[in-house]
Amino acid sequence: MSAFPQGLRRAIQLLARLPGVGEKSAQRYALELTRNLDLASELGAALSDLKLTVTTCQSCGNLAERRSGEPGICPICADPRRDPKILCIVARVQDLLAIERSGAMRGRYFVLGRLLSPLDGVSASDLPLAELLGRVSAMGPQEILLATPPSIDGEATALYLARELEARGFAVTRIASGVPHGGDLEFADQITLGRAIEGRRKF
Amino acid sequence: MSAFPQGLRRAIQLLARLPGVGEKSAQRYALELTRNLDLASELGAALSDLKLTVTTCQSCGNLAERRSGEPGICPICADPRRDPKILCIVARVQDLLAIERSGAMRGRYFVLGRLLSPLDGVSASDLPLAELLGRVSAMGPQEILLATPPSIDGEATALYLARELEARGFAVTRIASGVPHGGDLEFADQITLGRAIEGRRKF
Repeated sequence: MSAFPQGLRRAIQLLARLPGVGEKSAQRYALELTRNLDLASELGAALSDLKLTVTTCQSCGNLAERRSGEPGICPICADPRRDPKILCIVARVQDLLAIERSGAMRGRYFVLGRLLSPLDGVSASDLPLAELLGRVSAMGPQEILLATPPSIDGEATALYLARELEARGFAVTRIASGVPHGGDLEFADQITLGRAIEGRRKF
Repeated sequence: MSAFPQGLRRAIQLLARLPGVGEKSAQRYALELTRNLDLASELGAALSDLKLTVTTCQSCGNLAERRSGEPGICPICADPRRDPKILCIVARVQDLLAIERSGAMRGRYFVLGRLLSPLDGVSASDLPLAELLGRVSAMGPQEILLATPPSIDGEATALYLARELEARGFAVTRIASGVPHGGDLEFADQITLGRAIEGRRKF
């Protein structure tokens, strides 16, 4: 590493801060970029431009085009055909995209951006509850679907939000948790199987 | 992907051109960068700057600091303590760095940048033979060590270079190939074991 020119060392350090990228991969990416300096320039410009071209949707927290003088509104919030009777709460933009790919949700979204996580020091006061309540009262949905992941943090967050929302008179639902499509019961873990049985439905 | 702002789509496309990075990883990196726009800007600037700060060493092909008005010379070529009697030929800068880490080579280097590869359309005329011969005649080494990898392409390249260099009267050596340190004979492949036995030395 110390044998590298300084500019390359800096690029490696920054690349290693991408999620799941270690020192070795960062070095591999950077060395490839020194062999393809046009790609390096193009990628550099594209990443620098993110600040100028991408923003957060003001009403749901999804990603949106940044246009000067306009508030950021994402394609989903801008689409009048989306069902305003159902609001789906997700943890991350990635989760919103995954649900969109399923095609099973025609309502609207709210992206929390984080989950309750006592171990990481994220407490209830760190959740955007005020923003969520603002969104809910502006929209007046008949159903609020909690689509946080079925992990410990996701369940804790769903529980907390359900309490807050039900206390305000909203109908709250939770995505089903069980054996995934194509999954083998033999290899499903106990908690998943327990949930699949607990959450059984009439055939 | 189509749900993403255009600037983000562009960043994902370019990130997916890094070695070993697929669509999914590129998306993951890009989404992380939209959450950390300062990192995006810093990384963008660092990558754009590579063209301005990094160059190729004029005498060996290693990476070197680019300084205005000066020819690029890498730290190894600039170091007068390096042994000029031995020239080590490697395929890539990464291989040079790996050999440097071993501390076993105190001579000088020449980076080919590519290997003979008929399947990828790289023929002998694509190898920098003229540059190598220029380097060799400027340096006059007593030994030329071929450190291309012990793969099909690496062996073919070593064979070709050995013929060219020996025809010009140079003493050519090849790195040893055999069972790696800590390796288990039981799990070594036949070719590796064959080479380990063929290349046996006096104890």
